[in-house]
Amino acid sequence: MRILILGGDGYLGWPTAMYFSQRGHEVAVVDNLAKRVWEAEMGVEPLVPIRQLPTRIKRWREVSGREIALYVGDIAENHRFVYQLFDDFRPDAVVHYAEQPSAPFSMADREKCVMTQRNNVLGTLNVMFAMRHACPDTHIVKLGTMGEYGTPNIDIEEGWLELEHNGRKDRVMYPKKPGSFYHLSKVHDSNNLEFACRIWDMRVTDLNQGVVYGIDTDETALHRDLCTSFHYDAVFGTVLNRFIVQAVLGQPMTVYGRGNQTRGYLNIRDTLACVELATLNPAEPGEFRVFNQFTEQFSVNELAARVQSVAAAMGLAAEIDHVENPRIELEDHYYNARHSALVELGLVPHLLTDAVLAEMIDSVVRAKDRIDPELIMPRIHWRMRSPARQGGD
Amino acid sequence: MRILILGGDGYLGWPTAMYFSQRGHEVAVVDNLAKRVWEAEMGVEPLVPIRQLPTRIKRWREVSGREIALYVGDIAENHRFVYQLFDDFRPDAVVHYAEQPSAPFSMADREKCVMTQRNNVLGTLNVMFAMRHACPDTHIVKLGTMGEYGTPNIDIEEGWLELEHNGRKDRVMYPKKPGSFYHLSKVHDSNNLEFACRIWDMRVTDLNQGVVYGIDTDETALHRDLCTSFHYDAVFGTVLNRFIVQAVLGQPMTVYGRGNQTRGYLNIRDTLACVELATLNPAEPGEFRVFNQFTEQFSVNELAARVQSVAAAMGLAAEIDHVENPRIELEDHYYNARHSALVELGLVPHLLTDAVLAEMIDSVVRAKDRIDPELIMPRIHWRMRSPARQGGD
Repeated sequence: MRILILGGDGYLGWPTAMYFSQRGHEVAVVDNLAKRVWEAEMGVEPLVPIRQLPTRIKRWREVSGREIALYVGDIAENHRFVYQLFDDFRPDAVVHYAEQPSAPFSMADREKCVMTQRNNVLGTLNVMFAMRHACPDTHIVKLGTMGEYGTPNIDIEEGWLELEHNGRKDRVMYPKKPGSFYHLSKVHDSNNLEFACRIWDMRVTDLNQGVVYGIDTDETALHRDLCTSFHYDAVFGTVLNRFIVQAVLGQPMTVYGRGNQTRGYLNIRDTLACVELATLNPAEPGEFRVFNQFTEQFSVNELAARVQSVAAAMGLAAEIDHVENPRIELEDHYYNARHSALVELGLVPHLLTDAVLAEMIDSVVRAKDRIDPELIMPRIHWRMRSPARQGGD
Repeated sequence: MRILILGGDGYLGWPTAMYFSQRGHEVAVVDNLAKRVWEAEMGVEPLVPIRQLPTRIKRWREVSGREIALYVGDIAENHRFVYQLFDDFRPDAVVHYAEQPSAPFSMADREKCVMTQRNNVLGTLNVMFAMRHACPDTHIVKLGTMGEYGTPNIDIEEGWLELEHNGRKDRVMYPKKPGSFYHLSKVHDSNNLEFACRIWDMRVTDLNQGVVYGIDTDETALHRDLCTSFHYDAVFGTVLNRFIVQAVLGQPMTVYGRGNQTRGYLNIRDTLACVELATLNPAEPGEFRVFNQFTEQFSVNELAARVQSVAAAMGLAAEIDHVENPRIELEDHYYNARHSALVELGLVPHLLTDAVLAEMIDSVVRAKDRIDPELIMPRIHWRMRSPARQGGD
């Protein structure tokens, strides 16, 4: 298949490109490389330096003998680029990661909130129209997030909900309660895409993905220049990465609030497998298909205890500290999210075993000298009380 | 009260400004005047020419002895303007009409779709942040549309839905199924605003308004220069206006499709009364309050029959024609939308009586020589098959 990866410079986009390339697909990646600027603005960087995208593509050619095509441009700001891209590559499938991916970034100030929704929502609209123009039967696999749902007091279904109200029935889009302007941008995307299914018979799979962990895939492991980004900072990092880095530093692991916040998690290897399953089993014309893409639910406290236990066995003593929660979210809540559709398509999960945790800890130990401890604690607060921002723009 | 009207040049914004001004409130209007360009792009114009906004404000001063302040600027493109505006005027209430208001316009092509979502969604975000900065306790009354809900097979509630699923209960945002990129922009706004209530304790009333009809209010009737726009064209016009213009021309009234599409309708006088009721009875801090703002439900066929009957009594013979529906929408569907909250606050509806219809027909007869019959039939199709647009941008 001809597979176009939007956001191919990112943590997931780059491994996805290699994964499909390794399996014989013709792959092109697209990126505006903007995350490099966003990282610079926030003063953060991945634990291990990431080579420039053309360098990685060259190294991939040397290692695998396979070509990945590269298009550099901005899908949100330059629609002519998007149209030319689709006219040129004519993909059989599109995997869309090309969005600003951080909730805290979107909550930093007005400019970053507006930029996030502009980039994500208008970029996706441009892609929809370009596909309508160049390849209306092509399937788009769009990365969303489990965070779109929030933490409702009812079971979370996969995108749609059969409901009965006053004795009548309907099937509706599952009501969402997103927790940041970033999460909202994904909800806006989902609503726009569902409409395109109704009016254009577009084929859409919306992957509501949990929190991804993991550093290596089969392909990143082939050469050190092929590695993907590991963020432990408070802007682009995730909770498990933070705990591991803190454990390696011998610092207390900082749980936000009471720590009973429960979410879905998955290994980066399963992200690639899920995206492959969605791509090889496309949605029907007019179908807005939603998969909840995660393999296990954990509370923050459970994750902290798991890291503490594995780290202890490796001789690393890590305390657990509860700190003020910078987010506004329920800290004690019901959480039961269905995630059976991808398993039914054949997903065999890589679970978060002690061995997986030990491997991650080991990787971080090897890069310990590059950790900047000052990047770990949150500086962006959901109420936007941050003094540097207060009252200004 | 100090009341800021965003979108004060528009069909509803201008009468709302005069209405509050007449009742002793201190009123300022804001507009970027962009609808003038959008009308020019589509080659359409209101039936009766609308004086420039400064001229109307001057005439209002002469007629009423009251001042309306004017700020010209773009809330979506110029956030500094928005911040300065709020710092300067410090409103007690904000009434937000400043959005691209046409579903067909948003469906014309990629550029107009993206422009609509950019203008509406990012403009509202700028207003939210400016209010957070300058007047965080101020109530915003935001104009949405009943079209956000679509035509679900269950009763439409006022913004929120109490539901039970697998034996558990929650109160959720009512699931929506908007019918155009314009309607989607309003759904995105609602989702962004509901989040702002949760994180900033913002006070929000979201008015999901039905289709507004009517030409005159008490204030527009005071001087011919104070009149507001009447659109009968296929882009900015509404179905009732179209039927009246067709009846006056002696042309068949064109029903899209089978004509059983049912929607909520209200008189422009009731729009003003509803906005006043919402403004004088503000939402609580942190409350995202939704009112369904309409007074009666009609199907398109019912409206056509009503116009036909009243026109006949005035000596105008009007046939009813069913034409191909340019939209993608259900033409036979359940529709039962709750609209009791505004009545409970004191709304006394002006219903669509024969006298009201006769008055509208009479107004159009007086301006008959300005009607351009070529603007009536739809040129924008939801499947975007229009040859001029197909394959291009």
